[in-house]
Formats: sequence, C-alpha cells, structure tokens
Amino acid sequence: MTGKVYLVGAGPGDPALLTLRAAELIASADVVALDALVSPAIAARIPSTAEVVYVGKRASAHALPQDQINALLVQRARDGKRVVRLKGGDPFVFGRGGEEAEELAAAGVPFEIVPGISSSIAGPAYAGIPVTHRDFATSVTLVTGHESDGSTGVDWEALAKMHGTIVFMMGLANLPLIVSRLREHGVPAERRIAVISRATTVEQRTFTGTAARRERRERDRVRDRGDRAA
Amino acid sequence: MTGKVYLVGAGPGDPALLTLRAAELIASADVVALDALVSPAIAARIPSTAEVVYVGKRASAHALPQDQINALLVQRARDGKRVVRLKGGDPFVFGRGGEEAEELAAAGVPFEIVPGISSSIAGPAYAGIPVTHRDFATSVTLVTGHESDGSTGVDWEALAKMHGTIVFMMGLANLPLIVSRLREHGVPAERRIAVISRATTVEQRTFTGTAARRERRERDRVRDRGDRAA
Repeated sequence: MTGKVYLVGAGPGDPALLTLRAAELIASADVVALDALVSPAIAARIPSTAEVVYVGKRASAHALPQDQINALLVQRARDGKRVVRLKGGDPFVFGRGGEEAEELAAAGVPFEIVPGISSSIAGPAYAGIPVTHRDFATSVTLVTGHESDGSTGVDWEALAKMHGTIVFMMGLANLPLIVSRLREHGVPAERRIAVISRATTVEQRTFTGTAARRERRERDRVRDRGDRAA
Repeated sequence: MTGKVYLVGAGPGDPALLTLRAAELIASADVVALDALVSPAIAARIPSTAEVVYVGKRASAHALPQDQINALLVQRARDGKRVVRLKGGDPFVFGRGGEEAEELAAAGVPFEIVPGISSSIAGPAYAGIPVTHRDFATSVTLVTGHESDGSTGVDWEALAKMHGTIVFMMGLANLPLIVSRLREHGVPAERRIAVISRATTVEQRTFTGTAARRERRERDRVRDRGDRAA
C-alpha cells in the first residue's frame, strides 16, 4: 500500500508555535525530510525510530537538489511510509511546497498540506510589531528578500507605492540593495525599518531604524573626505 | 497580583491548526474573550470552569465596542486572572491585536502575543493554491477586503501592479467592487481568481474563475437587450 507525504510547516522556530497537527504528524512519522530552517528544538521531537534525512539549507551549495528531494519523497511513500516533509515556516510561503506538491501529484502519491506559522508575521509579532494596524498599515506584502537582485521580477515601483508593511524574507544579506531600490522608487528616508533575525527563538534579535540616519552618516563621511582633500 | 492577558490567534477554523501554545492557554484560561470568527470546534476546547465572554462579530451592530473589550481585558487581568483574548486567524493580521496591545501596555497590564495561522495563507493552501510559487507568484499581499470602499486607503494602482498573489480578507461582499477596481487599474481579465469561504473547515468552499467570463456574459446581455430593442 502506498504511504502518504505530509508537507508540514514547522513554524518559525519556537516549538510552542507548532500546530497540533504538525506535532502529531512528527510524533508518528516513519521518515522525516528535514530542512535546515527547522529549529533544533523542533527536530528534537522526531522519534528515534524515524529515518531522518537532512535535505540541507536553502541556497547552500551542499543542499540536496530539489529533484532528489522530490524523488526521495515519492520513493519512501511508495514503500508505504508516512513521510513528513518538514519545512521552516509555512510550506506555501516561499517554501517551494507548491513545486513539491506538483511533483507528488504527477507521481500519483497521496499528500496533505499542513500550514505553519510564517516567520514573516510571527517575527514582527514577537518584536511587538503588528504587520497590519488600522491606523498605520492597511496591507502587508511578503516578498522574498533572498534573491532580490532583480531576477525574481520584483516590481520595485509598485512595491514602493504600497503604503502597508513590506516584509522581505531572508533579506538580511540584501538589506543595502533593498533599501536603495525602495529609496530610488520614492519611499521616504523616514520610513521605519525593523531587521529581525532568528524570529521567535530565544536568540531573536531586532534592530529598528530608518534610512535617514544612514544617509546622513554617508553624507557626513563624503563631506569629511572633501574637507580633508581641500 | 495582576494576571496576564494572552492575545491568541485561534487560526482559521480547523482545530488541528491551533498552535501548541494556544491549546495550552485555552485549556488553562480563567477568562476567554471570544470573537465570533473562532470556530465552534475550537470554542468547545474552553474548559467549563472558565468565564466566557462573547465579544461579538466584527462589523456587526451587536459587537461589544472595542473600548469595552479593552476595559474588560484590563479589569479581569487586574483581578488576577489568566485572560485569553481568542481571535480568529492571527491577532496581528487584520485582527486589531495591535490596538488591544497598545491599550494593555498603556494600562500597565502584562500581555503576550501568540501568533495563529492566518486564513489568508491556509485557506488557499487547503484549496491547493500556494500563495507564492517560484514560477507564478514572487510575492503575496494581504489586504482587508472588508472595508475596501476606498476608506482604507488601498492604493489600487500599486496593488494592480503587484504581479504576485493578492488576498482580500473578508472580501466576499465586496467582490464586484474589488474586481472592478483592479480591472480599471489594468489587471487583465484573464487573471485567475479564487473565492474561498469558511477556510480550512469541513465547510470550506472554493470557486475559481476569471473576470473574462463575467464580462463576456455582461456584454452578451447588453447586446441581447440591444437586439430586442431594435
């Protein structure tokens, strides 16, 4: 008998933010295919009887290629196993769950999607920032900040006009680029920025500020250099 | 001793999508202030020893006004109670959790935010629609569809330019208005639309289509009328 694949969102890191369904599926899994974005505290809930396959870190050279992940999920399900594909956050928010679901459907393997809490919303919440607020933000846009080198087709002009909150996921490395693009397209320098790392874990760190301070420092440095040259 | 208020997201409806933290807080609550968007299956988990206060349906004339909800939360916490403010979805995604948190902070009442699965992401997921997908949608924007009569400051021009998924929450009543505004601002008639009600519950219903069919029908009707008049 064919098993089943569960594409499960593990949430942003805090194990208390696992859903009841996710916790139950992890506890009864035969095989867990584990993404490096899943926190160690959550990985610790995998029973010792389960086969655990590390499918690596997104965007890492050492990751298992996506077609091999797909082949693994299909193979283990055909062996009759309960397979949990455990992903950080939500499988359908920049989690490539859509691609995996397509492959499973094409292979005729039964599957189920289990949404997870997305760090895009929970990270700001743990920092005390509501992503929407009647007085301040009537929309929230989630964008990948990971590949925002122009290749993902981000329409910066439209994005810069959105008055609501914009969350760039995995955007830390591209922070200077993201800020420059938004500034070029008319976002005021005073717009508040929060940078959050390790969302919802005990290691969460939050920095807030605006582009204005950085731009002022930049101008001062250029002026100082000019003074020295003069 | 002052108690504490927990602003808890109950998720979109399916009780299996409660977080472990939400389930634990509901089970140990002294007082639960319950929003009508919380599903009966979740309300059934409230212990019989807890005081339950129905704070009504958003946008209903019979709802407890927001300032009375705030006063209730503060009062019960000052009485030393563990107060769970249980909200549909996530408290910070169009849940007015931000306003309640501000009031609690101003009153000096300890509080904690517990994110929940948002129907904006889980509803489409249960319908098999990933809100992001590398090949089709590189962003997702969540907007309130509830008050989209222009009063919420939705920038339709910017929204129409977003190539990603747009989710209008509670948008059913305003569906014709939403479609017209997007079409006026250049969204093609062929863009796929999904309408989802009672997300993630056994009663979830999903309809998909495009504006093109409706517009064609509309043109046919106008032409037929013209034929009859001729």
